[in-house]
Parts: sequence; C-alpha cells; structure tokens
Amino acid sequence: MANSLDNNPPHEVVIVGGGFGGLYAAKALAKAPVNVTLIDKRNFHLFQPLLYQVATGTLSPADISSPLRSVLSKSKNTQVLLGSVDDIDPQAQKVLVDGEAIPYDTLIVATGAKHSYFGKDDWEEFAPGLKTVEDAVEMRRRIFKAFEAAERESDPVKRRAWLTFVIVGGGPTGVELAGAIAELAYKTLKEDFRKIDTSETRILLLEGLDRILPPFAPELSQAAEKSLKELGVIVQTKTLVTNIENDIVTIKQGDDKREIASKTILWAAGVKASPMGKVLAEHTGAELDRAGRVIVEPNLSIKGYDNIFVVGDLANFSHQDGKPLPGVAPVAKQEGEYVAQLIEQRLQGHTLPQFNYNHQGSLAIIGQNTAVVDLGFIKLRGFFAWLFWLIVHIYFLIEFDNKLIVIIQWAWNYITQNRRARLITGAESLIATKFGDNPTYYSSDKIRDTVNV
Amino acid sequence: MANSLDNNPPHEVVIVGGGFGGLYAAKALAKAPVNVTLIDKRNFHLFQPLLYQVATGTLSPADISSPLRSVLSKSKNTQVLLGSVDDIDPQAQKVLVDGEAIPYDTLIVATGAKHSYFGKDDWEEFAPGLKTVEDAVEMRRRIFKAFEAAERESDPVKRRAWLTFVIVGGGPTGVELAGAIAELAYKTLKEDFRKIDTSETRILLLEGLDRILPPFAPELSQAAEKSLKELGVIVQTKTLVTNIENDIVTIKQGDDKREIASKTILWAAGVKASPMGKVLAEHTGAELDRAGRVIVEPNLSIKGYDNIFVVGDLANFSHQDGKPLPGVAPVAKQEGEYVAQLIEQRLQGHTLPQFNYNHQGSLAIIGQNTAVVDLGFIKLRGFFAWLFWLIVHIYFLIEFDNKLIVIIQWAWNYITQNRRARLITGAESLIATKFGDNPTYYSSDKIRDTVNV
Repeated sequence: MANSLDNNPPHEVVIVGGGFGGLYAAKALAKAPVNVTLIDKRNFHLFQPLLYQVATGTLSPADISSPLRSVLSKSKNTQVLLGSVDDIDPQAQKVLVDGEAIPYDTLIVATGAKHSYFGKDDWEEFAPGLKTVEDAVEMRRRIFKAFEAAERESDPVKRRAWLTFVIVGGGPTGVELAGAIAELAYKTLKEDFRKIDTSETRILLLEGLDRILPPFAPELSQAAEKSLKELGVIVQTKTLVTNIENDIVTIKQGDDKREIASKTILWAAGVKASPMGKVLAEHTGAELDRAGRVIVEPNLSIKGYDNIFVVGDLANFSHQDGKPLPGVAPVAKQEGEYVAQLIEQRLQGHTLPQFNYNHQGSLAIIGQNTAVVDLGFIKLRGFFAWLFWLIVHIYFLIEFDNKLIVIIQWAWNYITQNRRARLITGAESLIATKFGDNPTYYSSDKIRDTVNV
Repeated sequence: MANSLDNNPPHEVVIVGGGFGGLYAAKALAKAPVNVTLIDKRNFHLFQPLLYQVATGTLSPADISSPLRSVLSKSKNTQVLLGSVDDIDPQAQKVLVDGEAIPYDTLIVATGAKHSYFGKDDWEEFAPGLKTVEDAVEMRRRIFKAFEAAERESDPVKRRAWLTFVIVGGGPTGVELAGAIAELAYKTLKEDFRKIDTSETRILLLEGLDRILPPFAPELSQAAEKSLKELGVIVQTKTLVTNIENDIVTIKQGDDKREIASKTILWAAGVKASPMGKVLAEHTGAELDRAGRVIVEPNLSIKGYDNIFVVGDLANFSHQDGKPLPGVAPVAKQEGEYVAQLIEQRLQGHTLPQFNYNHQGSLAIIGQNTAVVDLGFIKLRGFFAWLFWLIVHIYFLIEFDNKLIVIIQWAWNYITQNRRARLITGAESLIATKFGDNPTYYSSDKIRDTVNV
C-alpha cells in the first residue's frame, strides 16, 4: 500500500476518464493545492443522457459535447491529456498512457461502462447500443435509412420489416428512443414520403420484467406505458429476447416463442463496466461484481489502497442500503465531488465520513409534453413532468457551454415539429443506399411475424 | 435525339443531384404541371460555402445541411429518391438507379465536382480536400488532433511539425481555412494547453499565382493578404507545390526548392467534374473540357439532346464572355432556376432566350470583423465587407431551415470567442491518439525546413 498524501506539494492527482465522475472531480479540485491530470481517450465530455436525441435527429453531437480543455481552461492547476491508459502500477504509483508513465499521489478511475449483450456479442452487429457519439450517429443512420429503404421497396413484406423498429430494453434509454422514433414516424416525417405512409410504422419496446422503467414507482411505469401507447408504441413487457440474427428478433413471452422481422433493432438492455475494472482487480486484488464493476470501500477507495478511488459507472458502491447505486449521471457526479473533497481534507490532515448518495429523483421523457418524474415524495407525469425534465436538463447543461444552443434547438423543434439533424452520414452511408445488395437480408419465407399490432 | 416535351401530362422531370443546381431546379418546378424526381446519394442538401466552418469547429454538419425531403415536403409533385445513378440511357430516356430504371421526359444532371490533385492522387492521403461532410469532419479531426499531439510531443522538431499547418490553394476556401485556423490557434485555444504555446503555431497559405483570391480585383487580393498577415498567416504566392509525402510539402518558388515539415496539410487547390460527365459524354457524344465538365449549349442543354440539361459545377457554360462560369453556388442556383423556367415555357409551347448569369459579386471571409467583397461597381474590405458577408449568408440560409441556429452559433462564437464543435470523432479518432505508433511519421533528419516565419 502506498500513501503519500502527506508529502510535500504539489500533490499529483491523476484522473482517468472525463465523464461525469472524472470531470466533476477535476472541477471540484480547481482551487485545491494539487496538480490535476485528466486523461481521456476523447477530447470532449459527453452529456450521455441526451445521446438519444442525437440518435433520433434532434441534436448534433457537438450540442451535447463540451471540449474538456475548454471546460477546464480556467483551472490552471489542471492539465488534460488526450490518450489511452494501457496499465496502472499501484506500487510505483504510476499510470501508463500510450507508453508514457504518469506518476500520481492520488488516482481517481472513472472510465465508466459500455453496453453488454449478456454474452451474446454477435448480437451487436444487428442491434447496436448507445454509449458514444459514434454509436448515436450509427443509430441515426440506421433509423433514417430504414424509412428511405421502405420508400424504395416494392415487396410489402420487406417494406414492413423496414418499417418495424424493435427496441430491446424498457429502461429510460429504451423508453426515450421509442418515444422519439414514434414522434419521428407519426409527426416529423408524415409529409416527407410519397410511396410509404409512415403512420404504418411499428415501434416495439420489449422489456423482460413485468413493467417498463423498473427504477420508478409502479404507478409511473403504468403512466409511461399509457403515454407510449398513446404515441403509438407497442409495449411488450415480460418479453425475453432469445435470439437476434438476420434482421429477426426472437422473443419469448411465457411459453410462446415468436419471431419479429425488423431491419432496425436497437439495444438499450444492459451495460457492463469498462475493462479498466479488470486491470485494477489484477493489480490491487479489488473484487469485481458480475457486471465487472469494482466493489469499493465506504469512501470509494479500493480496499488496501486508500489513494486509489473508483467513481461513476465503474464503481459498485453498496454501503448505503445494501444495493449498488445505479449507473446514472448524478451518482457519478456526487462521487467525483466527494473524492475531490476528501483529497482536500486529507491534505489538511482531516478526513470525511463515508460517501452518501443524495438521490434527487428519477426522470424519463417519453415525448413532447409528456414525461415521468419520481422524486420519491412527489411523483409527476404528463406535461408538468415534461417541464420538470426540461428545466433539470437545461440546468445541468448550463454548467458547461451548451445551454443556449440546445434550448434554441428544442424550442425550434417544438414549434416546427421538425428535426434538423437527420443526416445519414459516415463510412457506410454511401454504400448503405445500395439496398438491393444487402447481404444480411432475410428470405421472406423465413418470417413468422406474429406480434400483433 | 428524343424530345417528348409536347407529350401528354404528366411530364416527367428527373433531376440527378441535390446540390444548389438540382435543388433550386426542383424548388422552381414545385408548382409546374410536371412530376419531379430528385435523385441524390445523400439524404440532405449541403450548404457547401460554410463547410470550412465545420472543418474548423464552429458549426456542426447538421447546421449547414437540410434534409432534402423536408425542404421539398410541400412540393407535392416532387419525390426524392435516395440512390446512386449507375447509368443514363438517352435513347430510351431512362436513368438507372441502383439497377432500377427511372423514365424521364426531361433530365437535369447536377452532380457537381470533387477535389482534384492534378493527377497526383496519392497526395489525397496526406492533404485531404473539403467537399463533403465527411471531408469536413476528417479535416476537423486532423486540425484538433495536431494541437493535442503537439501538447504530448517532447521533441521540439516534431512539435514544430505538429504546429505547422499548410493550406494549398489561395482561393476563397483556402483563405477562409487559413483565417479560421489562425483565429483558433491565436485566440480560441490560447488558454487551453499547458505545455505548448499555441501562439507558436505557423499557418502557411500557398498560392501558385502572384496573388491570392484571383477572381477578385487586385486591390482586394492585397487587402485580403494584409488582413491574413495581421491575423498571423504566412502567405506565400508564386509558390508551386511539387510534392506531398510523409508530412512534407515540397514547394518551388522561382528556382528555389524548399521542404516544409507539416503534420496537417489541407488541400484547397483544385476541382474536377464528377464522373457523371464522362457517362454523359459516352452516351451523347457531349464534349468535355479538361476538368471533365460538360460543354453545354446556350440554353444549358447537351448538343443534340435538348431534353438533357447540365447545371452547376458539372457544366462548362461559356456563351457569356467566352470564359466558363465559375463553380460557385450562385451560378448553379441560377442555372437550375433557368432550366426549370425553360421546361415550364416549353410545356406551353414557348421557349426562352439563352441563359445569362447575373453575377452579383464575390465574397470571401478572412476572420472576425474582416472580409473582402467585390461587387464590381463597389469593393468592400474590413468590417463592412464582413457585415455584408454575414448578411448575404444569413439571407441564403433563410431559404432553408437553418438560419436561426447558425445565427445563434455565430453570435455565441463572436461573443465568447469559443468554438464548441471541436470534436475529434470518427473511425480513426481512437487510434489517432496513439501518436507514438504513427507509421507515416517522418524522420527528423530528413527535414530541411527553410520557410521563414
């Protein structure tokens, strides 16, 4: 164990990851008598809760991204390093970044999570998830390409598959994607096509448990399901996905097995911790949970290494009510800020009581004018929940530099019902228009499409 | 020759390409008694004159793109087809789109141009051009990656190469890129780095002729050069690029040959017509000029085929003053509108006098508060030229759906001096951070960097 917290200044704090956990730790240390090095593979912080709006053509990636250097440019004790961490040496107190050793006195690891297919990694090709800007642009490409392909398809069975969207996972991301695609199909694109009627689009939201939005109170899950149904989404709970291949989703409902033909399958079902968890476990003996998260001490450090902290989605903190805290932005943010404060206290010879998460509520937006908000003591749905969602998100965005643009974009979309950012771009965008050559196209006789609409 | 203009309605107009030429033709035909099919490989119209602002991190791709379907959704006689034209059959009057034959009575070809390396296609890898959204995102990636790499580089020679930007071509795009990168380096990023001083950045603008902005009056070229120099750009006229490889640009100035070590070389030097010119030439015997453009009749049709028109950058129209019209948006727009009008007139048994381009002026922006404007009868420079540039571009954007956002972005950047859209994204963005492994890195002893700063 290496503890050099009472050394001479400058005390070197190295933070790995510029998500909510890492960035808020760095910001909270801006005035502390320490040197901070924030390492990230990307040059921007991503406001992940709004990523679904990029995937569905409302916002541009830059609208929900803040250059890390610009956010931290006034923190003169902080340097940003664009690079990828290969390894960590807790004995020598060094982090290896692209071959270069960066020494630390205190290390904060905040590398987050990525989507998980529960061991079925071959599903990823057919059902992309939503964690990065590139994921969102790929999802956007698939969604808008599907309508284009349907417009050019004369075979009604194939056209139906192009106009069928399946979203796997009924958590907030799945609900938000389903609601946004419904508004796209039934409102935004209504006048845009000549051969297809986009109101024939089917949007299926599949959830394994008996209700969507499991972290919310049951009455809010019901309200959300009702709102989604009013928007035109087909919600299927107690539905397990048993296979995904060749544009066919196989589902299991009780003893029933069914196949759904869909060209656009979106994954919003599960996450696992980033590989840095394993690296930490190897070097420190830290215990990992089943999702690969590092089980942390009450002060978010690793057992036996009180100068190594893990915050955000990579951490499994269960010292509050026995259950691990959820992988959401407010948890990461509070954890990052707690560790920053603890470092400052330690430098003055003090310490802090254990971390305590202050849960302020759960929010999910369903569509224009409708959302659900669970603050525990008060539960909102419909218009007031939507307004609350809006204010909270604007408040969070204000802390960076994006608020103005996003507010204008939202206002603009609200008034015009349009979505400007619906570009089909990227490496595959040109070949993608060659619909006829699609090698993964199913043969139509293979389809038993028995889900009722 | 096939002319079916006096057939029974509906008269089928097929337009290939949704740039300025094609889109304005389609818009002008919205109320004509014809059916219009607009075919494009992309689902959006791109406002190319502002592409350099995407490449330099001011705007997002969606800010300068308008979904074609959304622009044309109110034109009920118009359908948009997302697809790629393989061939044209002027005898059968059909266009082949991904294997599907689309019949036409009148055909408008407006597939534009792409950048040209004057036969040195291997330069493209080292010196990307700026024609598509993907080009702009790639250019943005290279520009911002260069500063990041410089920050991590300890060898002063290599760091100097990362901080040297070479722009080949002193036309409007080259001037605009050089000015924008100067503002980035000397203003926007000034506070963002800890190890490098971005004011040490060198930006070289290379032009083969004896002055930059050759289409402008000589005194405006001088004014632009002066403004660029004030911004910190090194302008080198009468400078030929003889080779580009391994991050080294070889230039020839008179009898002098010099090498410049630069990790970021941007191409703004030449364009050639899109391959559709060759297809047309094969089938109709149309003559092409050296840049591959189709030499058109005074009414923009192809000789011998008065129902096939070529407009925009693909057309060589030289019936006005003997010189071909330049490849700029106003020419394409007026040509598209002229052909639309001619089609309407013909349907009523009339015709039109030859096309006449109404040149309204040339504009180029250099930086904040400074531009050059050549309206022939009046020449502006400095702040008033900049204001004029702003008003003209906002006016053009108003015709689509983007004005509000772009104005807000500009106002925001103007006030804060920040650029929000500086994301390093795309397939290469993650490997790109592995600077050490860059296989094309030059060996420093190969460098004879003799350009004075």
